[in-house]
Amino acid sequence: MSKLLGKSIVGFSRSQSDEPFTQAVNPATNEPLEPQYFTAAGDEVARALDLAEKAFPIYSSLPAAKRVEFLRRIAELIEQAGDAIAERGVQETGLPEARMRGETGRTTGQLRLFAALIEEGSWVDARVEIAQPDRQPLPKPDLRSMKRPLGPVVVFCASNFPLAFSVAGGDTASALAAGCPVLVKAHHSHPGVAEIVGNCVEQAARDTGMPEGVFSLLYGGGRSVGVAMVEAPAVQAVGFTGSRSGGTALMQAAAGRKQPIPVYAEMSAVNPVVLLPEALTERGEAIAEGMLTSLTMGVGQFCTNPGLIFMPDSAAPAFKEKLSSLVAEAGCGVMLNAGIAKAFRESTAAIEKIPGVKKLAAADDAGGNCASPAVFSVSVETFLSTPDLQAEMFGPATLIVEGSMEQIEQAIAGLEGQLVGTIHGTEAEIKQYTSLVKTLEGRSGRLVFNGFPTGVDVCHAMVHGGPYPATSDGRSSSVGTMAIDRFCRPVAWQGFPDSELPQELQDANPLSIWRLVDGERSRESL
Amino acid sequence: MSKLLGKSIVGFSRSQSDEPFTQAVNPATNEPLEPQYFTAAGDEVARALDLAEKAFPIYSSLPAAKRVEFLRRIAELIEQAGDAIAERGVQETGLPEARMRGETGRTTGQLRLFAALIEEGSWVDARVEIAQPDRQPLPKPDLRSMKRPLGPVVVFCASNFPLAFSVAGGDTASALAAGCPVLVKAHHSHPGVAEIVGNCVEQAARDTGMPEGVFSLLYGGGRSVGVAMVEAPAVQAVGFTGSRSGGTALMQAAAGRKQPIPVYAEMSAVNPVVLLPEALTERGEAIAEGMLTSLTMGVGQFCTNPGLIFMPDSAAPAFKEKLSSLVAEAGCGVMLNAGIAKAFRESTAAIEKIPGVKKLAAADDAGGNCASPAVFSVSVETFLSTPDLQAEMFGPATLIVEGSMEQIEQAIAGLEGQLVGTIHGTEAEIKQYTSLVKTLEGRSGRLVFNGFPTGVDVCHAMVHGGPYPATSDGRSSSVGTMAIDRFCRPVAWQGFPDSELPQELQDANPLSIWRLVDGERSRESL
Repeated sequence: MSKLLGKSIVGFSRSQSDEPFTQAVNPATNEPLEPQYFTAAGDEVARALDLAEKAFPIYSSLPAAKRVEFLRRIAELIEQAGDAIAERGVQETGLPEARMRGETGRTTGQLRLFAALIEEGSWVDARVEIAQPDRQPLPKPDLRSMKRPLGPVVVFCASNFPLAFSVAGGDTASALAAGCPVLVKAHHSHPGVAEIVGNCVEQAARDTGMPEGVFSLLYGGGRSVGVAMVEAPAVQAVGFTGSRSGGTALMQAAAGRKQPIPVYAEMSAVNPVVLLPEALTERGEAIAEGMLTSLTMGVGQFCTNPGLIFMPDSAAPAFKEKLSSLVAEAGCGVMLNAGIAKAFRESTAAIEKIPGVKKLAAADDAGGNCASPAVFSVSVETFLSTPDLQAEMFGPATLIVEGSMEQIEQAIAGLEGQLVGTIHGTEAEIKQYTSLVKTLEGRSGRLVFNGFPTGVDVCHAMVHGGPYPATSDGRSSSVGTMAIDRFCRPVAWQGFPDSELPQELQDANPLSIWRLVDGERSRESL
Repeated sequence: MSKLLGKSIVGFSRSQSDEPFTQAVNPATNEPLEPQYFTAAGDEVARALDLAEKAFPIYSSLPAAKRVEFLRRIAELIEQAGDAIAERGVQETGLPEARMRGETGRTTGQLRLFAALIEEGSWVDARVEIAQPDRQPLPKPDLRSMKRPLGPVVVFCASNFPLAFSVAGGDTASALAAGCPVLVKAHHSHPGVAEIVGNCVEQAARDTGMPEGVFSLLYGGGRSVGVAMVEAPAVQAVGFTGSRSGGTALMQAAAGRKQPIPVYAEMSAVNPVVLLPEALTERGEAIAEGMLTSLTMGVGQFCTNPGLIFMPDSAAPAFKEKLSSLVAEAGCGVMLNAGIAKAFRESTAAIEKIPGVKKLAAADDAGGNCASPAVFSVSVETFLSTPDLQAEMFGPATLIVEGSMEQIEQAIAGLEGQLVGTIHGTEAEIKQYTSLVKTLEGRSGRLVFNGFPTGVDVCHAMVHGGPYPATSDGRSSSVGTMAIDRFCRPVAWQGFPDSELPQELQDANPLSIWRLVDGERSRESL
């Protein structure tokens, strides 16, 4: 790999700023990693915004085939940088190499999925209404509509996914696919991986003839660089994955603009798991084994981590006993950075102090930036009367809530919005507890039956979203092809000459896409 | 028609409050109309909210066929009330009977369009991914998703469309179709029409066995009733058509909630019309005639009214002369209420005082609540340096802006978001001015070529929306079948038994809807 420079990528050039921003730290050793990273200067941020604004009309007017080339070239270059990413990623995050390789594959897979989506083309939801000049009482005009990109998008890298939710992650891939230039704000925890991937995107933009400004990568503080970009008039949408405080700050900044803009913030969730009695009797130990894997995957640093487990207090003890013994023996994992490790220690210490909460088990604390997996329990009565027990403990800790099924349904009805709601039961039980399932549906973006919430497949049907505060906007998904809709708006053309319409709306349907023609789905020409 | 009671409809009962809210006034005569209308009491608003919240899980779980019956029954009952609506509507709005009849037809047409949409069923965007247990490196789970309703929706009646954007208008029809209970806040200008239509919706709900609370109609002030509902935790979305100040107040209330919710506010627009030189030479007078019709339709009280006309200062004089003479001879029309008539007089008086603005023509002012159509002109230089000239004059007044085509494109680039952008030109000209058309697309929800912005066809391809401040959320349309998407969010089911999935996602595809199965469109069973 080429030497890391520590500099922001502003269009096709590098920042000249010498104001220090951050230096990465290996969380396993607390040793700083070279090089020093510098904050983008104010005029450099302004230049990145200006380039993005100028790039938008050019980039958004390119044929989809050109954007396909760009996305595929990014994927190729990231693959070529796989060794460098794995090496630096392990140093910066404490995560194992296999995870880095896997996440790199997921990231290039996402880029190629969006390339395939826009190559096929039907995602634009093209609608054609043919003129009826003789319609009574009024003639019907020729009217055609499709989705068009919103404009420049700011993407914030996530701490917990240095690749799949960062520089060229799902937000960037879906925004670029839609036709929006992207300005990425790097995360201070993994600036080196960001630079390696940023170089790939910039190189791909040059290789495929994209306009300068289609992509920039900025280093700097949340206030001086991040919020400044969200408040810039050129920016038309925001993608964010992180804390609730960070996400709500961006929502407020966006709502306070002269022109408010959409913010897609994925924030916090505890992802309730409901264990029904017969399932617990039939396979309590097996559920406990699956739960441990889900709970400790990525050292518990997944937004879909199972942080809350509801079960009847009359259930057989196998599940609790098995989960407790597995947790007690579980290894400690290095967390992403010292701040996250500290916050995890604090949140598990805090929950233990709440009256009525019992610590069932915890692994020995290996110290440093390690997280010690832990499982707590509490009665549903205490849960219902203690709103703090809904708070996310970001890391490998979970809270078992026990009570009657009636009380459990009441507790679920009182939950905030969640990314995932999970149920374990027999087929007879899921038919029996329809009201509970319905209640859980109302709180969740995705429902899982007899599985675990972690593991978010990147496909057409995935919904990685959910009611507030799981996300700022439950009407969307940040994973899978649905994510492209976030960066678009519909535009209609009335009475236009065929040659002046976008190809997607022309009579001949030259791209052979699926369209809604007078209300009927068709991929024919008119 | 049955006697008007002046009372809110709270579920299936009537308000008992005796606190006066408003009495309608005939704007043509300034005479008050019986009866007195009463403000819903605080506990009645709370009861309507509670009923809506309780109705939601029931209503949203009904088979679409039941909601189809409900919508069609509403349409039937409104048709049966056509004479009463026309009589009261003319009295309350000053609009002619033909308009009342036409708008009633549009309203029942909208209800039936949404009934047909959900009867066909493919609008839910069902997506199915079939499990691949042997996929490497990870098994692929069975994953299926579709759109589900958000929850109770508050709809604000619009002053300027007592039927099509009011009690059973587009917002209500689309929300009910989606599966959301609706709480309507009546407009003080036409409470009687609201009551007649509200009675139809309530009767239809009873006739078709809908749960109480699927619909309520509340009378009262914007603060005590309207904002109170927007702030209520049970409410999950808001539909509004009205002023920018009203819409932004609701946006702030919604953003300030513990759980922020989407607001679909259609606010203000001046809907620029660009006249290209050859079109002006070829048919300047004909364009002027069409413009007058568009400008004065509904006494200029349409959100799509052409309030801004750009034309080259070198153009032939025919258009300006003809439009001026037509405006001078145009009849005055009674506006919807005294407040709107006063605001129109003030806005035309204010624009005349801006240095550089010339009044080209105005019809004689017939006094009272009449609006006198007027046309003003200004140079593009003055327009560019005077942001106030972008403000909407709600009524039959327009401003002609003259300059070079370069300056005109610059002025368009500086415009706020609009519902409609219109261009008149020859086919050669539209090919020549591609950059201008692109700029106009960036500011508009709908582009019209050689037509006029008024007249919003209710169909699948309509986009009645546009970037802020034309609407609060340019990612949607408030007219046409796309409007249903505003009140939904996607939900995914992972690993569920076939029988426990919504019908739309079951293997057999019992509703024969179009689905995306492993990325391929299909209406087959699996």
